[in-house]
Amino acid sequence: MTTEVKPSPRERLLDAAATLAYQRGVGVGIEALCQAAGVSKRSMYQLFESKGELLAASLERGAAAYTAWLLPTADDGSSHRRRILHVFEQVEAQAAVPEYQGCRYLAVQIELKDPSHPASRVARQVKEDLAGFFRAEAEQGGAGDPDLLARQLILVFDGASARAGIGADDLTGLVTPTVGTLLDAAGLP
Amino acid sequence: MTTEVKPSPRERLLDAAATLAYQRGVGVGIEALCQAAGVSKRSMYQLFESKGELLAASLERGAAAYTAWLLPTADDGSSHRRRILHVFEQVEAQAAVPEYQGCRYLAVQIELKDPSHPASRVARQVKEDLAGFFRAEAEQGGAGDPDLLARQLILVFDGASARAGIGADDLTGLVTPTVGTLLDAAGLP
Repeated sequence: MTTEVKPSPRERLLDAAATLAYQRGVGVGIEALCQAAGVSKRSMYQLFESKGELLAASLERGAAAYTAWLLPTADDGSSHRRRILHVFEQVEAQAAVPEYQGCRYLAVQIELKDPSHPASRVARQVKEDLAGFFRAEAEQGGAGDPDLLARQLILVFDGASARAGIGADDLTGLVTPTVGTLLDAAGLP
Repeated sequence: MTTEVKPSPRERLLDAAATLAYQRGVGVGIEALCQAAGVSKRSMYQLFESKGELLAASLERGAAAYTAWLLPTADDGSSHRRRILHVFEQVEAQAAVPEYQGCRYLAVQIELKDPSHPASRVARQVKEDLAGFFRAEAEQGGAGDPDLLARQLILVFDGASARAGIGADDLTGLVTPTVGTLLDAAGLP
């Protein structure tokens, strides 16, 4: 006998926001979100102050799992070069999924066009954490200019996810050699 | 005495679409577009089949001027390396403008999430023309792998414009050295 625990209205709203905002964009309507979650608008507004807060909470909820999936485990014994390349191999794998529409933490900021929006703030933090990972690896790996290398890596990351997300490039044979070239130039063995 | 020719309703709608879709995103309402243009909804629908067609026409109208601004003039006598770097110097200059929100031809595709949308199609063509420019310069400049270099360059272009557009990076001291490193690795003197 299995016991199924039905997700709470809050969880269902967070799921709906994560799925629909990604598929359709941040302009997805409150009605559509409530309908997908099977939650009344009244209940939604008891749980979240606004659609913006719901979007922010859904990004926040997914951030830890996303980062764990994207980054190598701490002290996995591999080189800093290898640890950086791991991130880009993950992006390349993600880009091969037909439903992939690019990095949600980039898309949300581009779509909202408002750095002070609660969802933009969450998304920016996720990106800053990724930049911080690159910066730390670059420094520990002995890069000549760790700041420059970290900015280059996240630029490639965002460019790759944007282009794969719009279907302009499948990233095959592109990202790894590009990052490899930048790591070589930075003196990261 | 000066004679002022007031732009036609069509021109005013194209102006409004170019400005508002860039500032607020493709979700900007028809009412807002008509109001900014000083044109009735009825007149708008006599001129354009849909908001999507209006967005597409506004992107199409701006494309030639954008490309002329972005690319070096044909046969300007400078090296292929220099001609490629010119494009990125333009992006860096554009990123310094406070109102800059990234490349509109990328943003539209990310926002619409629909490659078959008429505005996505126009935007994709503008990007493909840019990739074609990079490809031709890479080949004529003797790049070891012109396809790879062209893909790398437009990836950096899109990554740079996306990150500058969301205010994550001002691109200073980033784009030129990154492109320089990729051109060096491709053997483009």
